Amino acid sequence: MHVEITREYINQVEEAIERQDKGFILETMSEMYAADITTVLYELDANESKYVMDLLPPEVGSEILSDLDYDIRTDFLQHFTTKEIARYVNLMDSDDAVDILNEQTVQRREEIIALLDEDRTAAILDLLHYEEDCAGGLMAKELIKVNLNWRVRQCIEEIRRQAEDVARIYTVYVVDNRDILLGRVSVKNLLLSKDDVLIKDIYNPDVISIESYKDENEVVALMQKYDLESIPVVNIQGRLLGRITIDDVVDVMQEQAELSRQLMTGITENVEEDDSVYRISRSRLPWLIIGMVGGLLAAQFMGLFEADIAMLPAVALFVPLITATGGNVGIQSSSIIIQTLSSNTVIFEHFGQRMLKVLLVALLNAAIISMLVFGLTYLFRNDLTLSLVVSVALFSVVMLASLMGTLTPMVLDRFGINPAVAAGPFITTANDLLGLAIYFAVAHALYNL
Amino acid sequence: MHVEITREYINQVEEAIERQDKGFILETMSEMYAADITTVLYELDANESKYVMDLLPPEVGSEILSDLDYDIRTDFLQHFTTKEIARYVNLMDSDDAVDILNEQTVQRREEIIALLDEDRTAAILDLLHYEEDCAGGLMAKELIKVNLNWRVRQCIEEIRRQAEDVARIYTVYVVDNRDILLGRVSVKNLLLSKDDVLIKDIYNPDVISIESYKDENEVVALMQKYDLESIPVVNIQGRLLGRITIDDVVDVMQEQAELSRQLMTGITENVEEDDSVYRISRSRLPWLIIGMVGGLLAAQFMGLFEADIAMLPAVALFVPLITATGGNVGIQSSSIIIQTLSSNTVIFEHFGQRMLKVLLVALLNAAIISMLVFGLTYLFRNDLTLSLVVSVALFSVVMLASLMGTLTPMVLDRFGINPAVAAGPFITTANDLLGLAIYFAVAHALYNL
Repeated sequence: MHVEITREYINQVEEAIERQDKGFILETMSEMYAADITTVLYELDANESKYVMDLLPPEVGSEILSDLDYDIRTDFLQHFTTKEIARYVNLMDSDDAVDILNEQTVQRREEIIALLDEDRTAAILDLLHYEEDCAGGLMAKELIKVNLNWRVRQCIEEIRRQAEDVARIYTVYVVDNRDILLGRVSVKNLLLSKDDVLIKDIYNPDVISIESYKDENEVVALMQKYDLESIPVVNIQGRLLGRITIDDVVDVMQEQAELSRQLMTGITENVEEDDSVYRISRSRLPWLIIGMVGGLLAAQFMGLFEADIAMLPAVALFVPLITATGGNVGIQSSSIIIQTLSSNTVIFEHFGQRMLKVLLVALLNAAIISMLVFGLTYLFRNDLTLSLVVSVALFSVVMLASLMGTLTPMVLDRFGINPAVAAGPFITTANDLLGLAIYFAVAHALYNL
Repeated sequence: MHVEITREYINQVEEAIERQDKGFILETMSEMYAADITTVLYELDANESKYVMDLLPPEVGSEILSDLDYDIRTDFLQHFTTKEIARYVNLMDSDDAVDILNEQTVQRREEIIALLDEDRTAAILDLLHYEEDCAGGLMAKELIKVNLNWRVRQCIEEIRRQAEDVARIYTVYVVDNRDILLGRVSVKNLLLSKDDVLIKDIYNPDVISIESYKDENEVVALMQKYDLESIPVVNIQGRLLGRITIDDVVDVMQEQAELSRQLMTGITENVEEDDSVYRISRSRLPWLIIGMVGGLLAAQFMGLFEADIAMLPAVALFVPLITATGGNVGIQSSSIIIQTLSSNTVIFEHFGQRMLKVLLVALLNAAIISMLVFGLTYLFRNDLTLSLVVSVALFSVVMLASLMGTLTPMVLDRFGINPAVAAGPFITTANDLLGLAIYFAVAHALYNL
């Protein structure tokens, strides 16, 4: 049953653990989905979770372990013996099993592998070779493949034989004698075909596959573009190695969205509201300190003009306007270029044409904003030189921040760094300094200071 | 065949259209997936696209139309007669058909509906009743349902009958005589069962469904949590109305990620790099103007202290440090609370406990940052009062920006506004003003100005 997990229920579970009331836990949880029990475990501490896990059937436990977030799982598994872990890993899909093994220390990993069922070891050792963020690292070994020369009857037998290992079939893959992927046949087609029909007469040779070394972003883009619920993974020769299912791709998408949000907002670790004060604080400090250093550099720089400010304090009043506008323009520009960089489907115009467009947009916005500022400043302060200084500086800041905001992510991407880094405090801090330099240079020139 | 679309190919297509070379277009595109042709059309203008669409088989054209982005599709369909649109809509899944109808003016919509095949009209009129962003608005009518009392043989007949309409089955839904959803049976189970077995003996009564009025975010959360590739939609009585498939949910996730990125970076429309200069510029201006007004208000406010700045220009030097730190802290705080608000799976602690934690994190970071700033300022400027003013103000700014950054998204969410609005220029602008007020208040107090 799909239930709403309430704070009251969590409290009841905690009390039940306290008084060792196995009955309450087993009775309430036997009706629940593994994913709901996982939600409960997130609210318990590691010892309490261990107590609950020990009560549950190993099949449910292995589903829960597959579900858990990486960082929580690492803490959590510290409380389990390698034998206990091996029992769970034996019951998992091979892709989840490998994720968990990759999170262990080398020694613990070897110990767990030694305890696995023999028929699982080969598949898992094979999967351990792949980088985690490529197609090979996402795929599972569990799939149904049939030979081109089989009849429908043999396919059904094969499905029956593997029914327990492959929970969701989606598509049956058709291979030749050397395991080269030739096509696919849907379960629906098998169901609607006579038992003695040959696969080669009903299969569909049109199948989208991906090579094992391709990046996970390409997997996401392909599956999304062609609306696939699973994709076969092949090696360079075209041999069928495994398959990736849509639920894993949905998780990758979710992680990537969270990662870029964190990068853009200056948070360096994957934290959530219910993490510890220390952990949340630690994830936020690096960017705060970088921002602080930027602010102190700005103070040092403005210090060069301290005498000017004493003489013309009105110049100081517009510092927040300059820095804030530079920051806003920089973030907007990087947002647009990052979107292009992260979608694999866009076809690029030539670099020159793209930059021309960036400059045209910047020119239009810079003109509008600086004219407005000129008018309003003159209206309120009735000082032509000051209005001119502020609006000319603002114009230059918008132009330069647009360029910086566009080029920085492109350069980072070229060097293999996630360009979303550039959409947050980094761009803001750099633009603050740049904006101030322009502002005081313009003031100096126009006031003949 | 899955092909890489190159700029060269686009140019060749454009030239072929120019010289009315139907052969080249048909020959190259007949081998391509609809999704790849869509990529090509994005690079052509509306008239060129229309020329290509007229050459393609209507089945391919209807897939392309279903694929297109909302805003492009609206421009695009201006060039088609209602009769042409109706022909495509007739071939689409009902959910895509309804999306397109919803994008038309009322008159055009009625005209198209009048031209649809009779057997489709009822399903489509029914779907038009639902809001676009609820489960009912996402579902399609195409699904396979079987009666509890049927035998496997009848199910297979039903699947055969609907084979063309329901491309991907995933799950066969089991209903009673009144269409109440009772459970599910997988195609695999049907394949492995004897023809005369009763459905009631093999079906799984454990099925996760969602009511039609539930928000699309709940659909995404449920399907992701339970790793579903499709979910049945029911009314309040439990009657089966339709189903939502994972490919639509993946699109919703993608849209939401893009929407929050845009909100966070101060972009008001869904723009991409290859949109027009005018459109990109227009999407960016509103937040630039709001930031500008904030900056001018800051200037007005600081103007109150113009005489003080003239006397003590050193105070002005630290304005960028104060505003930047306030901005960074505010964005970080809202990022964390927005993540909690957008995930439906988190169980809230009591409001008081959550605020206590926010304050503890703020306290820790504020203490570290302001001590560092105190030390560094004293080191560089050797001025105890100034160092004290800056660090006390910074401490208060971090505390207040944390509170504001946390509370603003919560309040917006309560009023049904997307809290991501608060993670961008809004928080930054508000924090700039707040920070300045604190800073000058502290300076005034400590300097006895």
